Amino acid sequence: MLPAAPAHAFSLPGSGQGKSVIILGAGLAGMTTAYELTKLGYRCTVLEARERTGGRCWSIRKGSTHTETVNPTQTAQLDEGLYFNAGPSRIPHHHQLTLQYCRELGVPIEIYNNVNEGAYHFSEGQGALSNKKIRIREVHNDMRGYVTEMLAKAIDQHKLDAALTTEDVTKIIEYLRAEGGLDADKLYKASARRGYVEAPGAGDKPGKIADPHTLADLLQSGLLSPDFYNVAEYTYELQMTMFQAKGGMDNIARALEKKLPGMIRTGAVVSSIQNLENTVRVKYTLKGAPQEIEAEACICTLPLPILSNLDHNFSSDVSRAIDFVPYIQTGKIGLQFKRRFWEEDEQIFGGITHTNNDLTQIFYPSNDYLGKKGVLIGYYNFNEKAKKVGTLSLKEREQLALEKGSLIHPQYKTEFEHSFSVSWHLTPYSLGGWALYSGDTRQTLYKAFIKPDKRVYFAGEHTTYLNAWMAGAFESARKAVADVHARFTEQRLQYPASTKEGG
Amino acid sequence: MLPAAPAHAFSLPGSGQGKSVIILGAGLAGMTTAYELTKLGYRCTVLEARERTGGRCWSIRKGSTHTETVNPTQTAQLDEGLYFNAGPSRIPHHHQLTLQYCRELGVPIEIYNNVNEGAYHFSEGQGALSNKKIRIREVHNDMRGYVTEMLAKAIDQHKLDAALTTEDVTKIIEYLRAEGGLDADKLYKASARRGYVEAPGAGDKPGKIADPHTLADLLQSGLLSPDFYNVAEYTYELQMTMFQAKGGMDNIARALEKKLPGMIRTGAVVSSIQNLENTVRVKYTLKGAPQEIEAEACICTLPLPILSNLDHNFSSDVSRAIDFVPYIQTGKIGLQFKRRFWEEDEQIFGGITHTNNDLTQIFYPSNDYLGKKGVLIGYYNFNEKAKKVGTLSLKEREQLALEKGSLIHPQYKTEFEHSFSVSWHLTPYSLGGWALYSGDTRQTLYKAFIKPDKRVYFAGEHTTYLNAWMAGAFESARKAVADVHARFTEQRLQYPASTKEGG
Repeated sequence: MLPAAPAHAFSLPGSGQGKSVIILGAGLAGMTTAYELTKLGYRCTVLEARERTGGRCWSIRKGSTHTETVNPTQTAQLDEGLYFNAGPSRIPHHHQLTLQYCRELGVPIEIYNNVNEGAYHFSEGQGALSNKKIRIREVHNDMRGYVTEMLAKAIDQHKLDAALTTEDVTKIIEYLRAEGGLDADKLYKASARRGYVEAPGAGDKPGKIADPHTLADLLQSGLLSPDFYNVAEYTYELQMTMFQAKGGMDNIARALEKKLPGMIRTGAVVSSIQNLENTVRVKYTLKGAPQEIEAEACICTLPLPILSNLDHNFSSDVSRAIDFVPYIQTGKIGLQFKRRFWEEDEQIFGGITHTNNDLTQIFYPSNDYLGKKGVLIGYYNFNEKAKKVGTLSLKEREQLALEKGSLIHPQYKTEFEHSFSVSWHLTPYSLGGWALYSGDTRQTLYKAFIKPDKRVYFAGEHTTYLNAWMAGAFESARKAVADVHARFTEQRLQYPASTKEGG
Repeated sequence: MLPAAPAHAFSLPGSGQGKSVIILGAGLAGMTTAYELTKLGYRCTVLEARERTGGRCWSIRKGSTHTETVNPTQTAQLDEGLYFNAGPSRIPHHHQLTLQYCRELGVPIEIYNNVNEGAYHFSEGQGALSNKKIRIREVHNDMRGYVTEMLAKAIDQHKLDAALTTEDVTKIIEYLRAEGGLDADKLYKASARRGYVEAPGAGDKPGKIADPHTLADLLQSGLLSPDFYNVAEYTYELQMTMFQAKGGMDNIARALEKKLPGMIRTGAVVSSIQNLENTVRVKYTLKGAPQEIEAEACICTLPLPILSNLDHNFSSDVSRAIDFVPYIQTGKIGLQFKRRFWEEDEQIFGGITHTNNDLTQIFYPSNDYLGKKGVLIGYYNFNEKAKKVGTLSLKEREQLALEKGSLIHPQYKTEFEHSFSVSWHLTPYSLGGWALYSGDTRQTLYKAFIKPDKRVYFAGEHTTYLNAWMAGAFESARKAVADVHARFTEQRLQYPASTKEGG
């Protein structure tokens, strides 16, 4: 169903004929710059340290291999047809450029079911609801009930000093009653919104509703603490609708690679980047042998922790930014199971279970629903938790995922088959998940990357306000292409022309 | 990816060999009873008034025809490959039996993206925000902000007489701040959660956020009124995850029909149902010619408004229930467009726009994203609005859908191609959407259908607590089969064994 013709293709006036550009990194940013520069007539060479393209856009399938800085090499034992995305796994509906490249490159997409009211909140620790799996709908609807009940009472008793007219008050109370599911007395009672303990059916089966959790229990069990805040799905980028590439997110990378025949040198490990008088010179090793290449411009998409260890003659501003912008520590483990017990036994189709333990999250697959086998993301954690789990051996990571996961899904014990784990901060040529900017470093360090350092242009999510998203790769690639092309055609181009949110 | 083997197949002990059953109606309930009874050895005859099977489970495709009680026949002009579901279009993830039949019958499913924060609320009428399309995320996040801000203030000022400990108060305030996105002073300020007016991007594009809508504007523009309450997606049956059958919901009906070779007589219009001493006699016309058939049992799935006009000798309880349970008036219009402007121009992928005008809702398709053409449900309305629209001519319905829809999507005017409308309460052999029970009629009239009237058993969504859902057809079919089988095998079976919500 995907029309082959490019929609909103990126077309700039003028030609880059006769000009050469070195591109460092064959991730999405690097390959997209090469793809777009080639359209404009430039001669591109892409240097990629890994034996594969795609960078962090990487799906683990049968036979995928991975060697971290500390652990031995893993080879994925997944069955044919199964996969999980070790890197980006979601596309927000408003990342127009990502969707456009899916369309232009003919990569089919499908819904990523990020919000699932039937998944769980699981709090280990203290409180009456701890160590129990609570359907997210129970927490959501109980809290809507309690919050609106308290507010309705305060408004009713004229205890708010908000300037509300009588008419406003009537409307707000009516809204709160509907929003919270309050009864005629404006009190919260459990309703079907939070689910049934016995499903309604035919004949004399009206279904049975459980009592709500008490506010005290929810509070004391940590279910309203930062580990479980709704902000995850309230975040603009995580609101539905979300998408994934069918069959694995790296189909986007594969499709880009196909557009760059003969242009990408894999196994090319860069050691030095030097701005010369009229060129950029890059030294690298190819299968161990030293090589060098010069071109009239260079687009550097290497992650900052990698750049930080290279020889370069960048300005002090750029050099400082490279060294001081931190990257997130993050890891995922894929767990293959013999059957999709989360669907068959628990009616969980996609979505995320949140925990306050080291797992942080369990992602259920948004594809092949009702299929036979499946792969869960057994943990997807960040910062201290990811650091701690990263230090474990591969076997210990698997044990952790299974042990903690079994608290939620006891089926783990009998249905587990294989695991494959990736710690991005321990992954060579990445050494981190994505750039983490604060308000401060945005004002100071970040600025260094948004203009060229002589003939070296920077691209990658770390040069955008779209950190961690594939959109950052695509948007920065287009900006770098526009900037390089402006230099050589002596045009004043600006990318992007102010992008309005559609509609 | 769908395993062919039945999961959780319905297996009852004993055989129905030598017994015959007449089934009235080849909708999902009727065909499912025939399918399951046949497995048990019964000889089944299904009488269906229409020339097609499926009943309300009906997808409109190129060449579909429809003749209502008042309007001339329509023939769908949709392009090959396009469709819309005139009847049920959504499967909740907890309707296990519906999903099980999809699996058993080999009907592939895909996500129905019922909740889309990027769709609109559109209020026609008074107020500063009326006649504007407001992204749902704006209303959601603004209201979370205002509600939590007001409550945090009341709690802070000890204005609530709730029995909260100091520790509870701290936790609740922390929760409210996160839930509402309040600032350090516990005041609501607009954040990225409600979207951008300029998207963030590469380089010096941090994105731009608009001011929140004021509470007064939201109230006075009707956006917090019953037309827009979140209850739609809070309803248990409408919470994500939801599914649809790939390619049209009536693929479920088609798959069932294939299991019943030679058993279904279409064009068979029932005129009389009589319980005799040891049989049931059903009179009907087949292509106008009078026919009759007798069997040892009958399962009647005809909608009550149809039954009400037949000759029968049911008990007074059953007769009264048939005559007095109301059915909803409801209608849909499918609108084919030349291009998917809602996706291309407005980044709306699936989900629902709500209005307070006669359209009530616009449904965006949850399939073939990024495709070329598409079919919107231009209205899906109920009760008085459906009644009013139903009285219009086909052309006037189309004009209404286009005129009101153009207020939201001006692209309607240039992109529209074809329409097809269905008013269920004006549709022969249905005469309504689904049974509407009140608390009262559940206690009185409903009871008549959950036990047999002599040799006639009732099935269909109107004999369940799952009204309007395909699950009602499936659950009632199984109950009817179990009841019939219990009679003939003299077993005490109960269906269902109390169904626990999984997990």
